[in-house]
Amino acid sequence: MDVSIIGVGQTEVKEMWETSIRHLSWYAIEAALDDAHVSKVDALFVGNMLAGELSQQNHLGALVADFAGMRGIEAVTVEAADASGGAALRQAVLAVKSGMVKTALAVGVEKMTDQTGASVTRALATGLDTDYEMMQGLTTAGMGALIMRRYMYEHGVELADFAGFSVNAHANGADNPLAMFRNRLRAESFISAPLVADPVSLFDMAPLADGAAAVIVTSKERAMDMVPQPVEIVGSAIATDAFALHDRRDLLWLKAAELSAQKAMAQAGVVHDDIDLFELHDSFTIMAALSLEATGFAERGKGWQMARDGEIARNGRLPISTFGGLKARGNPGGATGMYQIVEVVRQLRGQAGACQIADAKIGMAQNIGGSGGTAVTHILQIRD
Amino acid sequence: MDVSIIGVGQTEVKEMWETSIRHLSWYAIEAALDDAHVSKVDALFVGNMLAGELSQQNHLGALVADFAGMRGIEAVTVEAADASGGAALRQAVLAVKSGMVKTALAVGVEKMTDQTGASVTRALATGLDTDYEMMQGLTTAGMGALIMRRYMYEHGVELADFAGFSVNAHANGADNPLAMFRNRLRAESFISAPLVADPVSLFDMAPLADGAAAVIVTSKERAMDMVPQPVEIVGSAIATDAFALHDRRDLLWLKAAELSAQKAMAQAGVVHDDIDLFELHDSFTIMAALSLEATGFAERGKGWQMARDGEIARNGRLPISTFGGLKARGNPGGATGMYQIVEVVRQLRGQAGACQIADAKIGMAQNIGGSGGTAVTHILQIRD
Repeated sequence: MDVSIIGVGQTEVKEMWETSIRHLSWYAIEAALDDAHVSKVDALFVGNMLAGELSQQNHLGALVADFAGMRGIEAVTVEAADASGGAALRQAVLAVKSGMVKTALAVGVEKMTDQTGASVTRALATGLDTDYEMMQGLTTAGMGALIMRRYMYEHGVELADFAGFSVNAHANGADNPLAMFRNRLRAESFISAPLVADPVSLFDMAPLADGAAAVIVTSKERAMDMVPQPVEIVGSAIATDAFALHDRRDLLWLKAAELSAQKAMAQAGVVHDDIDLFELHDSFTIMAALSLEATGFAERGKGWQMARDGEIARNGRLPISTFGGLKARGNPGGATGMYQIVEVVRQLRGQAGACQIADAKIGMAQNIGGSGGTAVTHILQIRD
Repeated sequence: MDVSIIGVGQTEVKEMWETSIRHLSWYAIEAALDDAHVSKVDALFVGNMLAGELSQQNHLGALVADFAGMRGIEAVTVEAADASGGAALRQAVLAVKSGMVKTALAVGVEKMTDQTGASVTRALATGLDTDYEMMQGLTTAGMGALIMRRYMYEHGVELADFAGFSVNAHANGADNPLAMFRNRLRAESFISAPLVADPVSLFDMAPLADGAAAVIVTSKERAMDMVPQPVEIVGSAIATDAFALHDRRDLLWLKAAELSAQKAMAQAGVVHDDIDLFELHDSFTIMAALSLEATGFAERGKGWQMARDGEIARNGRLPISTFGGLKARGNPGGATGMYQIVEVVRQLRGQAGACQIADAKIGMAQNIGGSGGTAVTHILQIRD
């Protein structure tokens, strides 16, 4: 890998009814351009899942390029359900690696809170299998519930055993001024929260949100001359799995998460102990547990123990969700994967403020789409 | 450029109510795999515009990878309105050029005819500017009408002067067994056709359709060992323009078409006379005329004369729409750009059947999104 990040930007994550998709995108892009000290790029990759459904706006590549003052440049939208953000960065990496694009901008943007809950629930389910799952009434929360119930049954754990993930996310989010939820959460509240889809409760799943985040990449050589703290992308991989839950050989194994992490780690030449933090896809606590297991940080059936034992805290063995994760920072769909990258970059640069973890040199981000049909893994490294 | 095409496949273009998106995709992919004599690829790029809106199905990358028996591989969806097909091929090219992907599959797929005309018209308008154009009632036909009316006024031409484009498209489509419309069209019928959006008439605009087409690419070196007739991609470029019509400096100049063609021709090291055929984006006759002008094959205001003078016929100076183009082969949205590529490949290989033009060595394809906000140009070449 010879691609480095030279600039990152992000907006607050919250309900922003007065802000359009183009404005959201621009705020993140403007911050990233400022950060990289450049005014233009050669290609734009927009990660987005639901603008067509929820804002009746497709063709975001050209729209955002134009609004960002970059009329003429190469631009497309990249979609892989909730993994659209990570997938957009992956295309930017490939573009720079190809030698056909010098500097590429990846922006993840999503606007989900203008519509009714029913509309958004329905739109989100388009990331599942429409013909075989959504048509039978499956929602993303229902999907999370099916997996979680099976996990509880197979591994003999209870709802309370997942509390640590949400408690950790909120503890970190409380220190992130851009987070949607900045309140701390007690384990007792987690357990008594209203159910959304038994056993998934309100405090178990990440909130839908509006937001945008942007990342600018160029070749490693150019990056070293351009910014004081380039962050190298040492691993970048997308993998897929059986699309529908009923087609999985193993309901409790995120094969795409495993595959993409293995590929990215092989590219980076790192082992688990080398990784200082892991921004994972905690859309549900069960997804956090399964991600830790599939990527090899925990044994099968024991991911939840890392939360119970505090290993995922900012001072733990493997900090996760260091800015609040999807649960507390908020989950703006196709932008989420880009927030993960921005957050890892801030940690590696030592610019994480109150969320800073100590001595972070190598960080991993993993963005998951649908019920695990797509997983995108990036490994970032800062050199001394 | 060091990327070559080793396989192509396509389905019929028509109304296919009984065929799902995954099946459509698979039929095209299966044909392309057979053509390339391979059973698997390393990455999949799905070009699609409206599956989310019209079939409530997003996340096509993982879905199609799974259904095509390639569970595990890298896969994403690429969207740039009607230019999604060309844009997906562009990502496949970048992926192979990057060295991170050996063999990539690009499939364009669209299913538009299951819904009511009003739903589809509304969905298609999401490729225009929703906040400033669609909300005021602009449709794609209305967009075509605004541009066409201005062209007629500025250049002093009449509706009848555009007839040659549709007559040529239908003459060629009549020889293409996969085309949606295989009837010949007389200029008199063109002139007397019912108006859709004055001056755009029924025989002036391309029909919406279902369809899928697929292209497999790998490095030029590998391609030479794999298939007897590899087709090299010697030029590949995407460019953008002002997104909304009202923001264009010049309503009659497709700047993105000009820019992407210039880039692709510079990469290929070819001049206009070297190009033996041009599969252009004739969604409306006015778009065909403007494409010829923006790409430099005709002078400003004179694109329509190439149709009048028969220069665009299969035995003319620059054959266009050789299998019927969008007008007669049919326009399955995000699949259209991939059909263009498949058709150029068939011409260069001498496998165009009754649609064959003589001595085709270099062909160009241009896929346009929205009202011209995106243009993707590819130049293909076959070596003796």
